[in-house]
Amino acid sequence: MITGSVLIGRQDRVGSGGVFDAVDPATGERIAPAFGAAGAAEVDEACALAEAACASFSATTLEARAAFLDAVADRIAARKDDLVARAMRESGLPRARLEGEVGRTVGQLRLFAGVVRQGDWLDATIDPALPDRQPLPRVDLRRLHVALGPVAVFGASNFPLAFSVAGGDTASAFAAGCPVVVKGHPAHPGTGELVARAVREAVAACGLHEGVFSYLPGPSIELGGALVADPRIKAVGFTGSRGGGLALLRIASERAEPIPVYAEMSSINPVILLPAALEARGDAIATGFVQSLTMGAGQFCTNPGLLIGIDGPALDRFAEAAGQALSASQPVTMLTPGIHASFEKGVEALETHQAVKVVARGCVGDGVNQARGALFETDAASFLADPVLGHEVFGSSSVLVRCKDTAEIKKVIAGLEGQLTATLMMDDADHALAAELVMPLAAKAGRVLANGWPTGVEVSHAMVHGGPYPATSDGRTTSVGSLAIARFLRPVCFQNLPDALLPAALRSDNPWQIARRVDGVVARG
Amino acid sequence: MITGSVLIGRQDRVGSGGVFDAVDPATGERIAPAFGAAGAAEVDEACALAEAACASFSATTLEARAAFLDAVADRIAARKDDLVARAMRESGLPRARLEGEVGRTVGQLRLFAGVVRQGDWLDATIDPALPDRQPLPRVDLRRLHVALGPVAVFGASNFPLAFSVAGGDTASAFAAGCPVVVKGHPAHPGTGELVARAVREAVAACGLHEGVFSYLPGPSIELGGALVADPRIKAVGFTGSRGGGLALLRIASERAEPIPVYAEMSSINPVILLPAALEARGDAIATGFVQSLTMGAGQFCTNPGLLIGIDGPALDRFAEAAGQALSASQPVTMLTPGIHASFEKGVEALETHQAVKVVARGCVGDGVNQARGALFETDAASFLADPVLGHEVFGSSSVLVRCKDTAEIKKVIAGLEGQLTATLMMDDADHALAAELVMPLAAKAGRVLANGWPTGVEVSHAMVHGGPYPATSDGRTTSVGSLAIARFLRPVCFQNLPDALLPAALRSDNPWQIARRVDGVVARG
Repeated sequence: MITGSVLIGRQDRVGSGGVFDAVDPATGERIAPAFGAAGAAEVDEACALAEAACASFSATTLEARAAFLDAVADRIAARKDDLVARAMRESGLPRARLEGEVGRTVGQLRLFAGVVRQGDWLDATIDPALPDRQPLPRVDLRRLHVALGPVAVFGASNFPLAFSVAGGDTASAFAAGCPVVVKGHPAHPGTGELVARAVREAVAACGLHEGVFSYLPGPSIELGGALVADPRIKAVGFTGSRGGGLALLRIASERAEPIPVYAEMSSINPVILLPAALEARGDAIATGFVQSLTMGAGQFCTNPGLLIGIDGPALDRFAEAAGQALSASQPVTMLTPGIHASFEKGVEALETHQAVKVVARGCVGDGVNQARGALFETDAASFLADPVLGHEVFGSSSVLVRCKDTAEIKKVIAGLEGQLTATLMMDDADHALAAELVMPLAAKAGRVLANGWPTGVEVSHAMVHGGPYPATSDGRTTSVGSLAIARFLRPVCFQNLPDALLPAALRSDNPWQIARRVDGVVARG
Repeated sequence: MITGSVLIGRQDRVGSGGVFDAVDPATGERIAPAFGAAGAAEVDEACALAEAACASFSATTLEARAAFLDAVADRIAARKDDLVARAMRESGLPRARLEGEVGRTVGQLRLFAGVVRQGDWLDATIDPALPDRQPLPRVDLRRLHVALGPVAVFGASNFPLAFSVAGGDTASAFAAGCPVVVKGHPAHPGTGELVARAVREAVAACGLHEGVFSYLPGPSIELGGALVADPRIKAVGFTGSRGGGLALLRIASERAEPIPVYAEMSSINPVILLPAALEARGDAIATGFVQSLTMGAGQFCTNPGLLIGIDGPALDRFAEAAGQALSASQPVTMLTPGIHASFEKGVEALETHQAVKVVARGCVGDGVNQARGALFETDAASFLADPVLGHEVFGSSSVLVRCKDTAEIKKVIAGLEGQLTATLMMDDADHALAAELVMPLAAKAGRVLANGWPTGVEVSHAMVHGGPYPATSDGRTTSVGSLAIARFLRPVCFQNLPDALLPAALRSDNPWQIARRVDGVVARG
């Protein structure tokens, strides 16, 4: 069932971009079969088909669009065992995690199906004609959201299912009515192909244009670049490294027609340890911290890579407890040899940094590509003086910053780059200080938490997985949760059009029975 | 009352960027007083103040924010006579137009006051905790929109009031809670200063931080570039030329922290003349066309610069009627000598183009800087072959493209760049063809009209004044109408925060009584 093919619409192709292998990171061994990487010819074909699919796919009824999302979900759910087995070998991630990820992938497709059916995302808005208005009449104006066009989605290394071929970006682009061309991640090409076949089956079963979905696996930077540069692509969804995201941003901005790139790139997710909480339950916080830090080898965008607290005995006790827990933590296989090498390099840079002290490292393992957790500490002045200390080390590495007082905590917060999350560990007695920090943290992050850990991202309506640059390239959006549909839409106004020529969502009899804003006030359908 | 000052918060400053003059375009003479252009020092001060104003301004109550917008509107309305008198001299525009523009400026400030009071723009969204959910509980998640931060607004030459110092961009940025630093257009510095003083008075009267508004007039490209490059600026609103917009885009994308630029740049606003309408009422359409084309010397972003119809006797009659009407049209003073020179250059390029025929020119005038209307024609093959024929000539210049058949009309539409508007002139018998064109036109434009002219943009909820590149740099938004508030917002999620630490809009007792989405369904407050 895994053939190593490129999937262009309904066709299997042998990729023209050379051959590459899936690798088991736990052993370093290749996993059959060999994969043909997509080349320029396949990019061209996939984009041409995607463009050809635009008009019909963006014009489906809400029910047809939702049924398609459900059909993709059904087919992924039906392949759960095969997917988990293959993804375990390709990613080194454990069964429970991957089973959960199948559930999340299916769940977010169904969430978007519900969002599509409800129709609020169309933002249907009607300003009725006012023929008698003085000094000038008003003509009938009706607005709704339309799909941007073909979207390029880059699969992420660290979520082989939930942020890959049929992950969040693909689900939200489909929901918006955009055909999707996936650039498959080379770290899990077999998993990717299985999912791609499931999506393709759903396209066919729903009678949609084959160009709604194509799948271009491959390891080369050129492949991704060619896809983003293709003039038929109108938006890009990416989760990965800062370097990778910035390269795509550059390509997108240099196109004859620049396009939006939603790149989720880099975050160290500061956790502020407020005094009363630290005093009362520093040990428990330390335990929770190490669990969050080391889960999945720390390979989460929301991994807690920065702790901030006021120097003193309570922080000493916290550091000791965290150090003990971390020292007992087992090494974990990382996703790819490349990610492991980057982790080692990042940890070494901190270990050898003059202003940094090692608090603890995790246990040494005997396997390849394993991450040993790392906790470092430094003082606020040093942290503020060297931006390198605030750069993400992807994996279970974190830096504790000791501040002299609350004023210095505020300075450290003010000096932070944009983040996906920021967390306050607080007790009742911390409220006054927390109240001063909430909005400054909201100015830096897409999500502000109290008394929780940032890992574990709920897929729901209120979730924001985004944040100011460089957490993402576009802080006006989210890549997780129902609001992500907005990334692939733009508004169009229809002025004085005969009812029969309007999109169904705007016709006077409201055939889809959706909520619409009339003269500024929303009325249910 | 006009002193030629730069306004930094509550202070008047003598600009450090040299001296420049206001010019009466009807005579070419300077108008007193001399103006001091803002320099790098004033950019720095204005941005520092704007940043200092962010926290308090973005945290006002809805009522306080709305009252401020109303206060700006009141003060502009109160200065109507002075504003109109000064703007007439600086812009050459007639009294009635400028009186209308004061009304529009005041009206859009009040529209945004209403939008702010209603609170829908916050998109307040609550996913309540589900402590008993299996396999994992859900924590309380609450989301709302927050202000992006200080916004740089570039005044436009062609709307000295409605798209300048307190125009649409400023109103929507204020509504979102963003301090504004205006780069004043040198074509109407006296008008700009009068408005800037009105805004500043409103800031003071409402007890807001002085940094909420600063005004930096000046003629240099460097001034605008320095403002966009300032790290404290978080978004840019611009209306002007393609070259100017692209230059700002480049600066914004090269910043250490790239920021969104909303540049409204270039559009030729195609008008499709469908066969039945052309046959039945070609003369009336021709008359309406020439009125729309020549109004205000054609200095509108929505000026009808492209006509598309099927070759034949009906189109011949239309061209003849339009030519006759245009030949009788009087020359009109343009906004600035520079705009006039560009218009002349653009018209000359068409006049001397091998594939282009002159249909008619307007009357020759005896004043300086006057535009004579120009109507050209060409065939579809030539139009498709040379992109220059599809470039905007800012002013009353338009090109009629003769197509062989409807297939060729579709080809011309498919070859168009992004547009602000696209118009169908149609009768009942044209419906079948129109139905095939509506969504292809919607794919190219922000607004699709039937049987109207694109000039005259209603400021309302359903309006979209935007469109795919290069009409704008960001087709996901609008610069006119209430939806423009979305350009200056980003979502933030609060997870598990104690009620007292949440922004008012998200507290459990809903103190502002706004509509909120709870578990995916909107409930009124």
